[in-house]
Amino acid sequence: MHTRSVPLAPDVDLEIIARSTPGLVGADLANLVNEAALHASRTNRTTVAMEDFEESFDRVVLGSERKIYLSEAERRVIAYHESGHALVAWYQPQSDPVHKITIVPRGMALGVTQSIPTDDRHNLSEEYLEARIAMALGGRAAEQLGLGSITTGAQNDLETATELARHMVVSWGMSQKMGLFSFDDSPQAVFLGRELAGSPHISQRTAAIIDEEVTRLLHEGYETAESILTTNRAKLDTLANALLQEEVLDEDQIARLIGPRALEGGIATPKPWKAAVTDAGAQV
Amino acid sequence: MHTRSVPLAPDVDLEIIARSTPGLVGADLANLVNEAALHASRTNRTTVAMEDFEESFDRVVLGSERKIYLSEAERRVIAYHESGHALVAWYQPQSDPVHKITIVPRGMALGVTQSIPTDDRHNLSEEYLEARIAMALGGRAAEQLGLGSITTGAQNDLETATELARHMVVSWGMSQKMGLFSFDDSPQAVFLGRELAGSPHISQRTAAIIDEEVTRLLHEGYETAESILTTNRAKLDTLANALLQEEVLDEDQIARLIGPRALEGGIATPKPWKAAVTDAGAQV
Amino acid sequence: MHTRSVPLAPDVDLEIIARSTPGLVGADLANLVNEAALHASRTNRTTVAMEDFEESFDRVVLGSERKIYLSEAERRVIAYHESGHALVAWYQPQSDPVHKITIVPRGMALGVTQSIPTDDRHNLSEEYLEARIAMALGGRAAEQLGLGSITTGAQNDLETATELARHMVVSWGMSQKMGLFSFDDSPQAVFLGRELAGSPHISQRTAAIIDEEVTRLLHEGYETAESILTTNRAKLDTLANALLQEEVLDEDQIARLIGPRALEGGIATPKPWKAAVTDAGAQV
Amino acid sequence: MHTRSVPLAPDVDLEIIARSTPGLVGADLANLVNEAALHASRTNRTTVAMEDFEESFDRVVLGSERKIYLSEAERRVIAYHESGHALVAWYQPQSDPVHKITIVPRGMALGVTQSIPTDDRHNLSEEYLEARIAMALGGRAAEQLGLGSITTGAQNDLETATELARHMVVSWGMSQKMGLFSFDDSPQAVFLGRELAGSPHISQRTAAIIDEEVTRLLHEGYETAESILTTNRAKLDTLANALLQEEVLDEDQIARLIGPRALEGGIATPKPWKAAVTDAGAQV
Amino acid sequence: MHTRSVPLAPDVDLEIIARSTPGLVGADLANLVNEAALHASRTNRTTVAMEDFEESFDRVVLGSERKIYLSEAERRVIAYHESGHALVAWYQPQSDPVHKITIVPRGMALGVTQSIPTDDRHNLSEEYLEARIAMALGGRAAEQLGLGSITTGAQNDLETATELARHMVVSWGMSQKMGLFSFDDSPQAVFLGRELAGSPHISQRTAAIIDEEVTRLLHEGYETAESILTTNRAKLDTLANALLQEEVLDEDQIARLIGPRALEGGIATPKPWKAAVTDAGAQV
Amino acid sequence: MHTRSVPLAPDVDLEIIARSTPGLVGADLANLVNEAALHASRTNRTTVAMEDFEESFDRVVLGSERKIYLSEAERRVIAYHESGHALVAWYQPQSDPVHKITIVPRGMALGVTQSIPTDDRHNLSEEYLEARIAMALGGRAAEQLGLGSITTGAQNDLETATELARHMVVSWGMSQKMGLFSFDDSPQAVFLGRELAGSPHISQRTAAIIDEEVTRLLHEGYETAESILTTNRAKLDTLANALLQEEVLDEDQIARLIGPRALEGGIATPKPWKAAVTDAGAQV
Repeated sequence: MHTRSVPLAPDVDLEIIARSTPGLVGADLANLVNEAALHASRTNRTTVAMEDFEESFDRVVLGSERKIYLSEAERRVIAYHESGHALVAWYQPQSDPVHKITIVPRGMALGVTQSIPTDDRHNLSEEYLEARIAMALGGRAAEQLGLGSITTGAQNDLETATELARHMVVSWGMSQKMGLFSFDDSPQAVFLGRELAGSPHISQRTAAIIDEEVTRLLHEGYETAESILTTNRAKLDTLANALLQEEVLDEDQIARLIGPRALEGGIATPKPWKAAVTDAGAQV
Repeated sequence: MHTRSVPLAPDVDLEIIARSTPGLVGADLANLVNEAALHASRTNRTTVAMEDFEESFDRVVLGSERKIYLSEAERRVIAYHESGHALVAWYQPQSDPVHKITIVPRGMALGVTQSIPTDDRHNLSEEYLEARIAMALGGRAAEQLGLGSITTGAQNDLETATELARHMVVSWGMSQKMGLFSFDDSPQAVFLGRELAGSPHISQRTAAIIDEEVTRLLHEGYETAESILTTNRAKLDTLANALLQEEVLDEDQIARLIGPRALEGGIATPKPWKAAVTDAGAQV
Repeated sequence: MHTRSVPLAPDVDLEIIARSTPGLVGADLANLVNEAALHASRTNRTTVAMEDFEESFDRVVLGSERKIYLSEAERRVIAYHESGHALVAWYQPQSDPVHKITIVPRGMALGVTQSIPTDDRHNLSEEYLEARIAMALGGRAAEQLGLGSITTGAQNDLETATELARHMVVSWGMSQKMGLFSFDDSPQAVFLGRELAGSPHISQRTAAIIDEEVTRLLHEGYETAESILTTNRAKLDTLANALLQEEVLDEDQIARLIGPRALEGGIATPKPWKAAVTDAGAQV
Repeated sequence: MHTRSVPLAPDVDLEIIARSTPGLVGADLANLVNEAALHASRTNRTTVAMEDFEESFDRVVLGSERKIYLSEAERRVIAYHESGHALVAWYQPQSDPVHKITIVPRGMALGVTQSIPTDDRHNLSEEYLEARIAMALGGRAAEQLGLGSITTGAQNDLETATELARHMVVSWGMSQKMGLFSFDDSPQAVFLGRELAGSPHISQRTAAIIDEEVTRLLHEGYETAESILTTNRAKLDTLANALLQEEVLDEDQIARLIGPRALEGGIATPKPWKAAVTDAGAQV
Repeated sequence: MHTRSVPLAPDVDLEIIARSTPGLVGADLANLVNEAALHASRTNRTTVAMEDFEESFDRVVLGSERKIYLSEAERRVIAYHESGHALVAWYQPQSDPVHKITIVPRGMALGVTQSIPTDDRHNLSEEYLEARIAMALGGRAAEQLGLGSITTGAQNDLETATELARHMVVSWGMSQKMGLFSFDDSPQAVFLGRELAGSPHISQRTAAIIDEEVTRLLHEGYETAESILTTNRAKLDTLANALLQEEVLDEDQIARLIGPRALEGGIATPKPWKAAVTDAGAQV
Repeated sequence: MHTRSVPLAPDVDLEIIARSTPGLVGADLANLVNEAALHASRTNRTTVAMEDFEESFDRVVLGSERKIYLSEAERRVIAYHESGHALVAWYQPQSDPVHKITIVPRGMALGVTQSIPTDDRHNLSEEYLEARIAMALGGRAAEQLGLGSITTGAQNDLETATELARHMVVSWGMSQKMGLFSFDDSPQAVFLGRELAGSPHISQRTAAIIDEEVTRLLHEGYETAESILTTNRAKLDTLANALLQEEVLDEDQIARLIGPRALEGGIATPKPWKAAVTDAGAQV
């Protein structure tokens, strides 16, 4: 219990905070609480509020804000990139709702789009996974559509999308062409011996099908992203320009700028705080 | 002898208990007995009954019940998934009889279908193996037929079915196309040296035949599952709805809901307690 | 000299015993002698006879008899399986003579067919090797012909036959298609460095020829076994039924049941005691 | 702070110096400052000026000047080689501006072309990467066009260009044929396990596409270089001859010899001092 | 100097002895001398003669004579096998002259054909290598022609011939199809790093050519052996029968039985004592 | 400074000596000087002359002269082999000039052709590399043309030529078919991780192109050598015969025997002493 000695405001739900940081170990959580308490004291409050945790979350998970010189041209690329992620998520009901977008550099990231699942998810549906791939590729698609030029900033997005698509094909039986053939090819599995010697039981033919299907899923995801952004071309400019001016936009601000998000078939009661960092525009 | 100091009720057959837990080591068995004794004392009985062992078996082998929040949508997915396993087993005489299905999360599992072999099995027939593959794929088929959407919850089932199909093809000579060519490709074998260097004696052509045959066996198993579930479409809804309400259903309850299981060619005298956990709906 | 302190009966030929256990080290041999002496004293004899060594051989090499529950269905599978091995050996003059068949589980084996080479063999002829492959596959063929269903019990037989066929192709120059190209691909060779890195000098084309030729040899061996068993269909039932009743049959009993073995071209003077365990019906 | 005890001239901008040497560790920076101070004192000045740092940069990063015997023929090859790099950069607006070219051997290099990015670059655009490949191949193209013979001096350039092209194809999604399929194939990744065993998930088909696309990008880059040099054939001779005479040429001298560089679409305000060593004409 | 304390007969040429045992280390040579001295004293002579070294060479290099039971059938196989080696060498002028053939088992060998190069050979010609392959395959060819059945006894011969053929193709540029492409694929080379990772620079196409050419050279060598033995069919029987009776035949005895060896183009002055063990009929 | 205590004759240029032994470490150089001083004192001179260094160079770099028995046939093979190297170099203006040829065995070599670059070479041109391959293959070509039989003596030459050709294709961009695709495949690179796991980024298609191009370059080099030797057939006999008689021939003696070397396009001022050992006729 890392929060016992810190008086909490009534709106702080420790369970949600704990669940929202699954990758952090004890020391990180203690750090999170300390940062929140520090932030509260800096703003002369005697209890730690939910906003203090939001602040400390950004600092601990994403890293501190960084003062780095960015040319106007680069800021535009990042603004369009993040707006692309946000818009693709905004108009796919299966996507997790967008919590915040920012072009303030933090840690290794030049910009971030945070989306938050409305529920703990245990089983992920095929539709949700497809939406997540499309959202990941939305940054690259926005650079292409909005600025007519693509950059290395999409590297992390491409790796994430490839990894998801690959799991759909080889672990989750979601490719007709591959069929239900399934195996665990996570890094750890390699060391368990089965696949140590070059995986003799995966033939070149199967390997080619896997690559083909992964490429197809990525292509379809990009087409979804491109289609959403083409349909909402003006809103992409609106969002990117607002982001260049404001640097941070939360869900409400986005809604005021471009209207309500698509909810058909979606889930209506977003819960705060289980943030998943979709994109970080890795710095080269 | 881990049970000497605990007075046992007359219905407790230690041999069956010991045989039903082949994967457990001494310490686990002691744990099993302690848990059973504890459960007995909690219900104010002075002897440990078979039901206490059933309780402790669930706790030790599957893990404790877990209080995790599941949306109604997710509970439906799990209910249909487990009902799918159960129904496919129910209508295949070669399958082991179904002992219990549940959607109470335990350990890593969100739901479980327990089936129990009627005898110790030493040699497994081709028909039995095919039935086991179909049963493993019954969960995915039920999601598809009952809810029109598939999820990542089938990952473990797919891996199990792939592993069984692969053994049929490469170790048990059960593929006409592969012929009687047989080798041991278990993880341990890799370290014995023969296959260390990329298995030069398995040509790409043979590797492709293996993948093709494994995929075919999986496809046939899925078609069997799909056919049983389509024929018994209404019973799938009945079972899933009952499961959503009751959370646990045993063999008798299932029989009352959907009628007697298919026994043509099957074995009539199910023995309690040699439970094989068919599916655990792995949590992502 | 492990037998010095034990008075031996005149019929005991220590040289034969020593030669019949090539895989055993000193400690095992001492064990063999002790077991024989024990067996003699248990039957109140003052000298150790050849039958005592036969008994101790079974115990030491195959393991002790095991009391495991086998359903009637499983005993039938094992009886037909072992009868298949025995019949195929019985009607191939090149095969080593059959010494004993049994369906009493011992060690890891559910049943055993013992055959004994009539001489020390130093060079093995192509015909002898082909006969050995056919005999190894006789178990599976008997399951198929006699019971119409195949099981996992043939796994060890398939591995043994595959290994023999592979050596014929890659080490002994016995495949026209492969030619005289020969290399040592025993596990140890891998560690000597030449083949460490994926055997660059074996092309995919050569690897495919190897797999093809091994598969062909296995197929031909199975056809030989199938043909012998089809021709002697009634004797297969006779032998399997006798085995179900008697549990153990020696060479003389077999001869009384199905007539003399084929000797045309065979070797007439079987020597006792150099037992090769052909099949052990591995327990799954 | 390695410069505290050294009085700096007003024109020295420590931040630019620090940013211009990203690959150097603390000890190297201290060395840089010491060398600059030494150079200042050798020329009897009491403050360290920017030119002192330029001098020490050359010495520390490129190594000391080396007295090695070069035949006139070899000096001509190097002069054309470096002039090729410089000209290709000069006439591509996307290239970083050329800072200096020299054929004085330093460290392992026989000649150097220094180009300096006008801004910190975080995301690199596809056009910039293509220009960088063309510039890297400009040395080889100049040997071919100017002297009619090619040498091993381009080895480093070819490796650099291949590496860039490969990243464009496999990490940055910049090949239509490869699609958005992306993975991290940096040396470190190999040790993280996923790709340890021969990268089973990259099929031969995908590997062939990668090689094809990398080769295409290199071919296009060479054609760009060749086209620029053919168009400016006389200037290539001018530059190479001046270099043979002067041994070092800075941006202003180059501009006086061949006119202003192409700036259409380029960035107009070059910042001094973030030198990237494009080519070093490795000594064989 | 291991012979100093032993009085040598005038016919002993220590240099020849030393050169004839290139694979032996110091301790082995000391052993060789001791054995020779022992043999001399056993026959009551005071000086060690060349025949004593011959005796000790057999004992040290080939191992002691072994008393193992061989059936008449097996002795015939070995006699034809060794006669085959000897005859193929006898009628190829390029072969090293035959020194001795024997079917007395020694060490691991059931029979041996010793041939002795007439000179130290430093560069081996293509014709000599082809003759050596044919001689190595003469044992197998003799089994086939003389007895109509082949055995595992040729395993070592096949490996030796394959190794020679492989070196001709990959190291000595003696295959038109392979061309002059050459690399060192000896076991040690693997550990030097170049080929550690699966030899990326040998394509499947090259590997297939290598296998094809090695197979062709072996096929041609076998045809040469077969042709010599067919032409000298009666002499094969003569030699094998004499060997069955005498167990050892030296060059002179062979010449008396089948006439002078072919010398056309051969070297006329055989030197004693540089024995190369061509074949050892490995015991299975 | 290893020469301080030794009085040097005025013609000794220490810098040239140091540069001519790039592969030698300090201890080797000391050895070189000691040997030269020894040689000077053996010939009763008080200063060490250039000829003493030449003598010591042979002894230290090539090894001492060895007294080994060579048949006349073998001496002829070696004489033609070395004459082949020398002639091919003699008539290619791009080749380094020939300094000396010898058939006196030294160290591991049965014969040596020394050629000396006229200048330090830093960048090697494509034409120079092609000439070096042709010269390396001249030994084999001379055996074929002069004696009609080829031997294993060319093994080192073939490996050297293959290595050079391979570098031209994969590192120096000198194959049209391969294009500018370039990577470092030196042994050390393997351990740096990138290529550790079977070089996933080199497809089979690329590997086949590499092998094809390397084979083509070797074929072209051999044709050049063959053409030069055919044109100068009589001079090959002249040179080989002189070598058989004299055992060593220097540049002047060669010129007297066969006329001046081709200098068209070549470099006219050979410098003494930077000897590169082209061929050593490895002893098998």
